[in-house]
Amino acid sequence: MTYARLKQNGGIFYAELKDGAYYSLSGDLFKNPQVAESQVQGAFELLAPVTPSKIIALGVNYSSHAAEMGEQIKPEPLLFMKPPSALLNPGGQIVIAHPENRTDYEAELAVVIGKECKNICAEDADEYIFGYTCANDVSDRVLQKHDGQWIRAKGFDTYCPMGPHIVTGLSPAALRVQSVLNGEVRQNSTTDKMITGVFAAVAFISNIMTLLPGDVIMTGTPEGIGPLQSGDEIEIRIEGVGSLINSVK
Amino acid sequence: MTYARLKQNGGIFYAELKDGAYYSLSGDLFKNPQVAESQVQGAFELLAPVTPSKIIALGVNYSSHAAEMGEQIKPEPLLFMKPPSALLNPGGQIVIAHPENRTDYEAELAVVIGKECKNICAEDADEYIFGYTCANDVSDRVLQKHDGQWIRAKGFDTYCPMGPHIVTGLSPAALRVQSVLNGEVRQNSTTDKMITGVFAAVAFISNIMTLLPGDVIMTGTPEGIGPLQSGDEIEIRIEGVGSLINSVK
Repeated sequence: MTYARLKQNGGIFYAELKDGAYYSLSGDLFKNPQVAESQVQGAFELLAPVTPSKIIALGVNYSSHAAEMGEQIKPEPLLFMKPPSALLNPGGQIVIAHPENRTDYEAELAVVIGKECKNICAEDADEYIFGYTCANDVSDRVLQKHDGQWIRAKGFDTYCPMGPHIVTGLSPAALRVQSVLNGEVRQNSTTDKMITGVFAAVAFISNIMTLLPGDVIMTGTPEGIGPLQSGDEIEIRIEGVGSLINSVK
Repeated sequence: MTYARLKQNGGIFYAELKDGAYYSLSGDLFKNPQVAESQVQGAFELLAPVTPSKIIALGVNYSSHAAEMGEQIKPEPLLFMKPPSALLNPGGQIVIAHPENRTDYEAELAVVIGKECKNICAEDADEYIFGYTCANDVSDRVLQKHDGQWIRAKGFDTYCPMGPHIVTGLSPAALRVQSVLNGEVRQNSTTDKMITGVFAAVAFISNIMTLLPGDVIMTGTPEGIGPLQSGDEIEIRIEGVGSLINSVK
């Protein structure tokens, strides 16, 4: 299934994408969504597809990216958080807070949790995952180094583009992850190159904190990151998941 | 005014504390709460007084604590986040995730945001603050050092006791902040010793990210931190704000 969150006439609702058309949903997306029989008509806006209680991200989760950043690979996943206020809709504009600082795109597969979980093991993780979406972990490299803690560098409003769709029933084992800057492929790797795989990451985080439906886990970025400039168009493309396009100011 | 969030018969609601009794509120706490005429009767549970979309915390915000931790004072506030899933009710039990690691209490004044704000200045911050509560920034020192990023060390479930009350109409300029371990005062300082004061901190954070009603800013801890052991009772006492007591397992 492919889901999106839409805004139309001031109302916000989930919809299912079938054969190129959206059908609005009622009920709880994570439990028993009911699909309308008729298509959504008229103009609407696509929103970031979730409203998470938290966004947990993995740092340095592809060895190729670790190498380009001069970061050591840690024996355990390295976690950080992005505030929900950083979420940006598909098509929305990334506003660079400090244009004097190098500010990079980072293509990432994002996991959307479907069921509350705590202390689960990797073997069981799949049943707690609702689906997958595309995310861009926009990062101010100067502040990231300056602060040590990464919240500010990665936490500015608009620094977490996400969407456009949540796709369910997918194996995350070997999906192609790409970023495309102004039409040119810059990152191009596959999720089987992750140091900590999707299921192991969900299990690891659930052994620290309770994960709730709608929570997002960003699974790290491969090599090929680079700076954004005003006027750029940055696309995150994930095989079977979709294409997330944002402009830059 | 003094507010609390109560749970009774499975229902959750805000209440105002007047002359030692709670009066339930209806409407939006941050906009137009309506106070009931009769007291809350019967047994109830006090909950952490907010359900924030994000908890932002200041690290190393008292020079005395910086000294005891061997941390340098940075020219700008150092931010980190705690996940909302770490919140613990007043009276609740802190469950030490890694008893083999030193895990410390940290007494902190917590700011509760009342109005959405972005890019405000310190002079205007007070009008966006709803009130203040007590918080304990429980921290695993081994993982904090090991990971570099502090999310895991400070993000376990129960590692963010908060409450019991939100107190409004208070000046945060010079409040006594104490922790009391098993009846013995361990931290004992005042908020005028902060490196970045409350209003400057709110303004600084609002220049990074949009703050929403109910968001929490934890303002850092003074010197005197120390480890928790199973069976301990840890109290965070803040002048004019209240006393937050939790047990440890």
